[in-house]
Amino acid sequence: MTGSDIHMTGLLEANAEFYRAFRTGDLEAMVALWVADDDILCTHPGHATLHGRNEVLESWFDILSSPPPVRVRDAQGLIVGVTAIVTCEEEIGDAVVAATNVFRMQDGEWRMMHHHGSQIFTSREDEDEPEEEAPLH
Amino acid sequence: MTGSDIHMTGLLEANAEFYRAFRTGDLEAMVALWVADDDILCTHPGHATLHGRNEVLESWFDILSSPPPVRVRDAQGLIVGVTAIVTCEEEIGDAVVAATNVFRMQDGEWRMMHHHGSQIFTSREDEDEPEEEAPLH
Repeated sequence: MTGSDIHMTGLLEANAEFYRAFRTGDLEAMVALWVADDDILCTHPGHATLHGRNEVLESWFDILSSPPPVRVRDAQGLIVGVTAIVTCEEEIGDAVVAATNVFRMQDGEWRMMHHHGSQIFTSREDEDEPEEEAPLH
Repeated sequence: MTGSDIHMTGLLEANAEFYRAFRTGDLEAMVALWVADDDILCTHPGHATLHGRNEVLESWFDILSSPPPVRVRDAQGLIVGVTAIVTCEEEIGDAVVAATNVFRMQDGEWRMMHHHGSQIFTSREDEDEPEEEAPLH
């Protein structure tokens, strides 16, 4: 494997580990996954963006006290220098969430810097159909 | 100003320019704002993530044919090497969208690599109230 292959493998493993910690309520692993400073962000579906360690980790403490049965699919990574974006979809019951996970290389490991999730209300099959309601954008 | 101040100023200007192009339907400016290769992504509110130049720019051609009166507030930047995240809120009529805009330095300018928007359904005042419906996460 080339260096970039190794980084991509590590990136997708870090993304998978995020969802393992999420699904199993593994608080210690979840905390360890995030960048170890205050420059972290999180936008949960339907919510305003949380800024900084206190707000972001507190939200995960709440979520992991009753973790949902989240499954992840279609993870795709994009590496630019010491940062990377993974996009994927989360299946939570009947709902599907489009997720953006931004990682940063820190101490030789990919750590999460920002998680943004938003529920998908329009199925792919609907994309070519006229929408009943005008989309926001 | 220090070098990082200059970069932050340029970053927030690029973010403001994105919303100017968005609001005024300036297609040429919008295309020029994005990274000039195929590694671009976009997640519109309620939709699945779009990958690559064709999908992403086509979605903006549609949107800018009838641009919404979008106003931006609370833009905050975070620079890590040659990439950066700007989070902000978009006001579109009565709706508010939480936006994540990921930029990449290319040819000496901050260009957009990923835009992820999701409508905020829970107001800040509601955050301490018990929710009627369980949140997705």
